[in-house]
Amino acid sequence: MAAVPPEPPRIDRPLAVVLLSGGMDSCVAAALTLATHDLALLHLSYGQRTEERERRAFHDLARHWGVERTLESRLDHLAAVGGSALTDARRDAVHARRAGSDIPDTYVPFRNTHLLALAASWGEVTGARRLVIGAVEEDGSGYPDCRAEYFEAFGRVLRLGTRPETDLEVSTPVLHLSKADIVRAGTRAGAPFHLTWSCYTGQDVACGRCESCCLRLKGFREAGIPDPLPYAR
Amino acid sequence: MAAVPPEPPRIDRPLAVVLLSGGMDSCVAAALTLATHDLALLHLSYGQRTEERERRAFHDLARHWGVERTLESRLDHLAAVGGSALTDARRDAVHARRAGSDIPDTYVPFRNTHLLALAASWGEVTGARRLVIGAVEEDGSGYPDCRAEYFEAFGRVLRLGTRPETDLEVSTPVLHLSKADIVRAGTRAGAPFHLTWSCYTGQDVACGRCESCCLRLKGFREAGIPDPLPYAR
Repeated sequence: MAAVPPEPPRIDRPLAVVLLSGGMDSCVAAALTLATHDLALLHLSYGQRTEERERRAFHDLARHWGVERTLESRLDHLAAVGGSALTDARRDAVHARRAGSDIPDTYVPFRNTHLLALAASWGEVTGARRLVIGAVEEDGSGYPDCRAEYFEAFGRVLRLGTRPETDLEVSTPVLHLSKADIVRAGTRAGAPFHLTWSCYTGQDVACGRCESCCLRLKGFREAGIPDPLPYAR
Repeated sequence: MAAVPPEPPRIDRPLAVVLLSGGMDSCVAAALTLATHDLALLHLSYGQRTEERERRAFHDLARHWGVERTLESRLDHLAAVGGSALTDARRDAVHARRAGSDIPDTYVPFRNTHLLALAASWGEVTGARRLVIGAVEEDGSGYPDCRAEYFEAFGRVLRLGTRPETDLEVSTPVLHLSKADIVRAGTRAGAPFHLTWSCYTGQDVACGRCESCCLRLKGFREAGIPDPLPYAR
């Protein structure tokens, strides 16, 4: 009887904490990171209107990848501070660009620093080596905390503000990609786009009209790949 | 009848968001800032054991200064992440230095970034010009996020991660002072030390034994000024 070949040794892969909103950008960032890292998935709610729908997408994605290390948390204080159409029901997130300002009304003051800070705390405790955020410069052109120089500056805070033995870096795998490139890269990496959620306003069916839906639809159109999500229009 | 002299014109002073824990360091930082700025006082609980007692000190101080612009918030996710004696009841905050590590066990992973991030978001919404944090290098010698270079790096994140029209700087007025110098500076500035709370463990009467009590008592002793707080020993 032939000997059963031994199992190949399990190679321990480094851990990456991925900020996973449930949208397509962070989904593709996670899918690309899977090639080299095990994942720890972090979802943060901060009183945004589509919070429940985003959390469903987060759990669907974690289940799809078989990731058990997940953490959900709320940053309620961001809603308490106010100042954004995403967290303030009186503001209109569909027509979001504020008259006379270069910054969209959907900007949540200093939001990415809050997200990265919690990813860093969790990453430090779990011994992760990478923090992954699916920020995109193109669609965040007006968001000051979506630019490469911001993430570089945060990386310095991360090195200086954690234990000496902590070895964490910020990774922004889709930062310089267009939405069409994200669709292409995600398709190659097997990203489950059908489980993601991008809409700023809808709950069950994406509106197809808000800024986020428009950017997503344009990306799929330019990539020549059909968006598997249904839309209200 | 002599004419009543007109009131002197009210000079609008810039606003400073002060992170006020209720301890003596942040109390003195606030007292020093009062010379040039109006105050907005921010208290953050993150599951630390002495949370309720600290909040009482926070409100006592706000009342003392007549400051109405206050915000309290919880960073519960920091407790969810764990990893510190200050937020984990199983750990011993009295004998806090971890064997074989230069970092005290009371270190909360990346804590100051969370505190400063919320101060920045609130500061951006309120149009403040300064974020004040009462960090002290001396007693935080083992805390990586209590060093000048960390705060400088955060200042860069603050400039890059906020709206172009936002003009916020980080101020650390007691960073390089010894505890004795903080007692002296606070006494000159009229800081109400009797309303502050420093103890890591007590609820009604400070223990006088934990690392924080010991540093405080040493500071008053060296300054030759009596500490107005009663102690259990």
